[in-house]
Amino acid sequence: MSDLIRGNAIIGQSGGPTAVINQSLVGVVEGLRMGLVASGHVATVYGMRHGVRGLVADDLFDLTALHQDRLDRLANTPSAGLGSTRDKPDQAYAARVLDACKRHDIRYFFYIGGNDSSDTCRIVREMAVSANYDLRCFHVPKTVDNDLMENDHTPGFPSAARFVAMACMADFMDNISLPGIKINVVMGRHAGFLTAASVLARRRDRDTEAAPEATTDGPQLIYCPEVPFDLDRFAADVEAIYSKKGRCHIVVSEGIQDSTGTPIGARLIKNAQVDAHGNVQLSGSGALGDQLGDLLKEKLTPRGGKPPRVRADTFGYIQRCWPDQSIIDQIEARRSGRFAAQLAMQGHGDGSVAIVRTGSGSRAFLGARGEAYASDYKRVDLSAIAARTRHMPAEFLSGHNNVSRAFIEYCLPLVGDLPGFERL
Amino acid sequence: MSDLIRGNAIIGQSGGPTAVINQSLVGVVEGLRMGLVASGHVATVYGMRHGVRGLVADDLFDLTALHQDRLDRLANTPSAGLGSTRDKPDQAYAARVLDACKRHDIRYFFYIGGNDSSDTCRIVREMAVSANYDLRCFHVPKTVDNDLMENDHTPGFPSAARFVAMACMADFMDNISLPGIKINVVMGRHAGFLTAASVLARRRDRDTEAAPEATTDGPQLIYCPEVPFDLDRFAADVEAIYSKKGRCHIVVSEGIQDSTGTPIGARLIKNAQVDAHGNVQLSGSGALGDQLGDLLKEKLTPRGGKPPRVRADTFGYIQRCWPDQSIIDQIEARRSGRFAAQLAMQGHGDGSVAIVRTGSGSRAFLGARGEAYASDYKRVDLSAIAARTRHMPAEFLSGHNNVSRAFIEYCLPLVGDLPGFERL
Repeated sequence: MSDLIRGNAIIGQSGGPTAVINQSLVGVVEGLRMGLVASGHVATVYGMRHGVRGLVADDLFDLTALHQDRLDRLANTPSAGLGSTRDKPDQAYAARVLDACKRHDIRYFFYIGGNDSSDTCRIVREMAVSANYDLRCFHVPKTVDNDLMENDHTPGFPSAARFVAMACMADFMDNISLPGIKINVVMGRHAGFLTAASVLARRRDRDTEAAPEATTDGPQLIYCPEVPFDLDRFAADVEAIYSKKGRCHIVVSEGIQDSTGTPIGARLIKNAQVDAHGNVQLSGSGALGDQLGDLLKEKLTPRGGKPPRVRADTFGYIQRCWPDQSIIDQIEARRSGRFAAQLAMQGHGDGSVAIVRTGSGSRAFLGARGEAYASDYKRVDLSAIAARTRHMPAEFLSGHNNVSRAFIEYCLPLVGDLPGFERL
Repeated sequence: MSDLIRGNAIIGQSGGPTAVINQSLVGVVEGLRMGLVASGHVATVYGMRHGVRGLVADDLFDLTALHQDRLDRLANTPSAGLGSTRDKPDQAYAARVLDACKRHDIRYFFYIGGNDSSDTCRIVREMAVSANYDLRCFHVPKTVDNDLMENDHTPGFPSAARFVAMACMADFMDNISLPGIKINVVMGRHAGFLTAASVLARRRDRDTEAAPEATTDGPQLIYCPEVPFDLDRFAADVEAIYSKKGRCHIVVSEGIQDSTGTPIGARLIKNAQVDAHGNVQLSGSGALGDQLGDLLKEKLTPRGGKPPRVRADTFGYIQRCWPDQSIIDQIEARRSGRFAAQLAMQGHGDGSVAIVRTGSGSRAFLGARGEAYASDYKRVDLSAIAARTRHMPAEFLSGHNNVSRAFIEYCLPLVGDLPGFERL
C-alpha cells in the first residue's frame, strides 16, 4: 500500500471477447469516477483501442465524461467495445507499453482479460517498478473458458454457459424429433467448464447424477479436455446409446486430446491451420465436429447397411457473444470492474480481482429451504493468475463421458432461469 | 363444402422442426376442442408420432384431454413435440396411410409442415376421394425457409429470422473487436429469406439501402441462393472491403449455387454426403463455410505474405429451434392451427392455411405515424402450395450481394424488438 499518485488512468480489453466484458469496462469507469476522479487524483480515464496494440500506437479513447446512458447501453453490448487484441507483450513490447504510459502520464493501468492479460499486467508492472515509474497495474478477470486460478468462476462464463445450456436443451428437442446422432462442439481449448455446462440441459435428470445411458434428456455424452479422449471408446459409447434409442446426443469440447496430450483436432483434421503459438485453429471452423461425425459414420455403419444419420454443429463465436446474458454474470462483471478501481483507490500497487462464492445457491435446487446464491470479491496477486490455467477438478467429472452432481450444483445458480419444456 | 361427418381427428408434424411448430399443434387441438369436439362430431383427437411414419405403425398419442397447462408449455417448447419425419409418401405409402385412417375411424387429417407436407395432404386426400372414404385433409404451414407459395410469410420463419439477426448483430461486434474475415452460413437450401434476414443486424443502416461498402454495421455482404454465386466475384467483393477496413463480415446461404444451378457446396466439398434425394448434406456440417474460408485464405494472401484471419461459423440447428421466439410468430403459428380446425368445422373437404398481411408494420420504422403490423388467414387449395417453392422476389434483392430496403420493411415487423448496442 502506498500513497495515491496523481495522473491519468487507462483501461484495455484483451483476448477473446465475452458477452459481459463491457460490463467490466463500465465498472472500472464507474469505480474510477466515484473514486480517483472524484478525489482529484485521476484527470482523464482513457480506453485503449484494441488493448496494448492501441496503447503503443497512441490510439486512445477518452472515457472520462461518457454519458451514463451510453455507459449503460455499452455495458449491455456484447463483445469488447474498445476492441481487443491477441498481442502478448514480450520485454521489448512491454517497454513500448511503459513508454506510452509515460507519454500520456498514465499512473493507473487496468487490463480486462484472461490469464495472458494478467501476465501482461505483471510484466508491465515489474518493468515499471524496475524503471522507478509509479504505475499501478490491475487485472480484471474475463473468460468464457472459466480457467483462471483463485476464482470460483470468471465473468463471461455464466453467460456462455447459459447459451450452451439453452442451445443443448433446444437442440435435444430437435434430436428426439428427427432422431439420429448429433454432435455439438463447444469452446474451451484447455478447460472443460463450458462443455460441462451442457449438462444443465438435462432438465429431468438434474437432481440426480444420471449415468449417460439413464438420462431422459440430452446430452447423453459429455467429453471434456481433462479426460483423455479415445476414438474407439467414443465410438463404443455412442453405439451403446444409439443401438438402444436410435439416437444419441453428444457434446464435445473443441479441446479434447488423447492420452499423450495431442489434440484430437490435430490428429483428425487434415491441413489444419496452425496459429502463431503453434495451436491448431479450433474455433471458427466446423472441422473437428465433421471429422468426428465421419468417424462415427464409418464405425457405426452395419456391414452392407446404411450409415446412421450423423450431424455436427460447432457453436462458434455466438456462444461467447450471445446477447441474452446471465443476470448474475452482468452484475458480477460490472462489480469486478468497480472492485479493481477500488483496489487502486485503496493504494494497492497491483492485483487481480477474484470472485468468491459466499452463498451456495442451493436454492436453485431446494427452493425456499436452500441458500441464496451470493458472491464477493477479493484481491489476489497477479502472479497467482498470470499464465496459469485452472482445469475442471476431479469432483466435477464423472467417469470419462459425464459430469457430476457437484458440477451441476456449482453451475446452475450462475446461469439464471432456463425455460421449461414439455415432452409428450 | 359438405355436411360434417362424425369420427376422429389426427394431427401430425413433418419435416425440419421449428421453434413454433408446437404452437400450431396446440392451435389445432384448441380449435378442434372449441369446434368439432364440442359439437360432438369428433370423439378423439390423436397425434401421430413422427408424422405418417407413426400413423401407419399405429403409434398414436391421445391429445383429446391434455391439460391446458401442458398444452401451453408444449406450445412454447421448440421442435416437434409429436416427433417429425422426412418420409414423403408415394402412392403405396399413401394407401397405408388411408388404411390406418380407416382403422382408427379418422375423418379429419391435419398435417403441419412445408410444401412436401402439403403434397402429402393432397395425395392422401385424392386417394380417399377415389376410395369414396370421407377424409378431410388440412395442411398447416411451417418452415424456417419461408418458401411456401401464397403466404406473406410462414410460421417458423420470423423466429428463425430473429435468431439470425441477433446472432449476426452480436457476431459483428465480435468481428470489429478482433478484426478479420468472418463467414456465417445460414440455412435455406432454395430460398434466401432466412439469409436475407441477417440484414436486420445492420442497426445503423436499416433506414437506408446501404451499399455493401457503405454499411456501418455488418454483415457487409449477403449471398442468397437466388443469385448465381461466382467464386472469383465473391473473393473480389471480400477483398474490396477487407483491403479498406481490415475486416469483412459475410453471410452466405447454405444453398448458394453457380450459374448452372450446381450447389457451391457440391463443387467445393470433397466426399460430400448425398441424401436419398440426391442432395448434398448442407446442414449439420461446417464444410461449406470452411471451404469458402480456405478459398479466401488462398486468394487473399499477398505474395510472400501472411494469410488473413478467416473464420467460418455455420449456425446449424439452433437457428430453427432457439427458444427466444418472435412473439408475432408464436401468435400466428397458434392461430394458423386454429384456423385449420375452423376450416374443418366449416365443412371444407381440404385446404391449406396462408397468412395474409393486413397491416404493413411500417410503425417499426415510422413510429406512431406508421401502420401497425397485422395479419389474417385464408384458405388456399392444397395444390397451390404442394411441392412448389417460393423464392425471394427480385425487389427483395439488391445487386448480387445485398438485399433491398423493401425486404427490410417486409421482415423487420415480424421479428420483434432487437437489442440496442452501443459502439464507441
